[in-house]
Amino acid sequence: MISKNEIKQVKALSQKKFRDENGLFAVEGEKMVAEALASGLDVVKVFRSAEIGEEAMSRISNLSSPSPAFAVVRIPKTVEGFVPEQDELILALDSLRDPGNVGTIIRLADWFGIRTIIASRDTVDIYNPKVVQATMGAIFRVRFIYCDLPQTLAQYRQKGIPVYGTFLEGDNIYRTQLSRGGVLVMGSESFGISDAVRANVSHKLFIPPYPETGTGSESLNVAVATAISCSEFRRRTE
Amino acid sequence: MISKNEIKQVKALSQKKFRDENGLFAVEGEKMVAEALASGLDVVKVFRSAEIGEEAMSRISNLSSPSPAFAVVRIPKTVEGFVPEQDELILALDSLRDPGNVGTIIRLADWFGIRTIIASRDTVDIYNPKVVQATMGAIFRVRFIYCDLPQTLAQYRQKGIPVYGTFLEGDNIYRTQLSRGGVLVMGSESFGISDAVRANVSHKLFIPPYPETGTGSESLNVAVATAISCSEFRRRTE
Repeated sequence: MISKNEIKQVKALSQKKFRDENGLFAVEGEKMVAEALASGLDVVKVFRSAEIGEEAMSRISNLSSPSPAFAVVRIPKTVEGFVPEQDELILALDSLRDPGNVGTIIRLADWFGIRTIIASRDTVDIYNPKVVQATMGAIFRVRFIYCDLPQTLAQYRQKGIPVYGTFLEGDNIYRTQLSRGGVLVMGSESFGISDAVRANVSHKLFIPPYPETGTGSESLNVAVATAISCSEFRRRTE
Repeated sequence: MISKNEIKQVKALSQKKFRDENGLFAVEGEKMVAEALASGLDVVKVFRSAEIGEEAMSRISNLSSPSPAFAVVRIPKTVEGFVPEQDELILALDSLRDPGNVGTIIRLADWFGIRTIIASRDTVDIYNPKVVQATMGAIFRVRFIYCDLPQTLAQYRQKGIPVYGTFLEGDNIYRTQLSRGGVLVMGSESFGISDAVRANVSHKLFIPPYPETGTGSESLNVAVATAISCSEFRRRTE
């Protein structure tokens, strides 16, 4: 059973304001709900259409085709003062706004064994339902930390941690030496890496088009560029 | 100026049925419209909000934030009997349904100098506005051919063209020899490569997770897997 008031409260979790107020987010799909339950996170409530009915499920769901399972999960506490370990590779997202891109990046980060992603505070909220669903469960395995990105990167640089970023004038990623660990910064869909972040990048990389003289397209989608970059880092340290 | 009837006709191009009936599709954004005009395709009509007004533009637009330019473009004729040239790399899409994924794949194909993509007939229509916009203009540079995919791949195999596909049981893509040209098949978001297509794959590849023992995620997004695979082919033939 689910009351009208509960439907309203659960549906409100599609909005950041209500997620922040309640410290809760929504997870949908049998597999995703099972992963939430197994993750160690605090799963506050699980709704199943077998119990609440398909009509109520379609009212709380954020999917065009509602799934039979829906969970309300507590947002984990933010980690403060994170510093990557020696030889650990992490990602840093600078003002990424598209939920699908960020969800896809969390999913591929998990695939490539990246355990932590840091992001500027204006990056899309990862508890947005579109991000959660696009991660395909990886949101439960990758730590995500919003921070003052230029300041955090400056601290990492002081500790001697290499900071990589992709730029049109960067070095051919295939031919450049890459360290085992470090930070890989990815810039926003519209503007790339901001000046404040750029000032803290120690190694500029570029994924060359084929042929290198160019083909007409001016850039790659940010999730695609992240994927290729992570693949290069991991391929070399296999 | 734009009449009410014209608004209705143009808006209808967001639906496949009307695109097919009229042989037309919609393109939005200053840059995209400029690329359409430069592409050699038949641009039937261009609307600018400076001329038709912002309210009319918001009615014909498929974007949440309408841009100042909109074009109606004739769908090019389908190429029949295409066979890749010696050493030419092409992509083949098997039942891809997500417009964002297919748009992203067309964009990255252009980046990597892939001039032709073939696709099963049940792959999403590339003239869907979400695909068109996600290509960021690459739709004007990459030839896209819907075909009977198993039959086409069987013909290619008879001609000795290598057909690659990604599978969980495939060979580590980083350590496998790749030919300069051939066909790279990508499977659907939900089901991977179908049995009929699989029967025509000559080389099975796998993008390994890091570490290779796995991380929890069971797969990569299809656009991400396409990106990494194309990057590997092009890196080796630089």
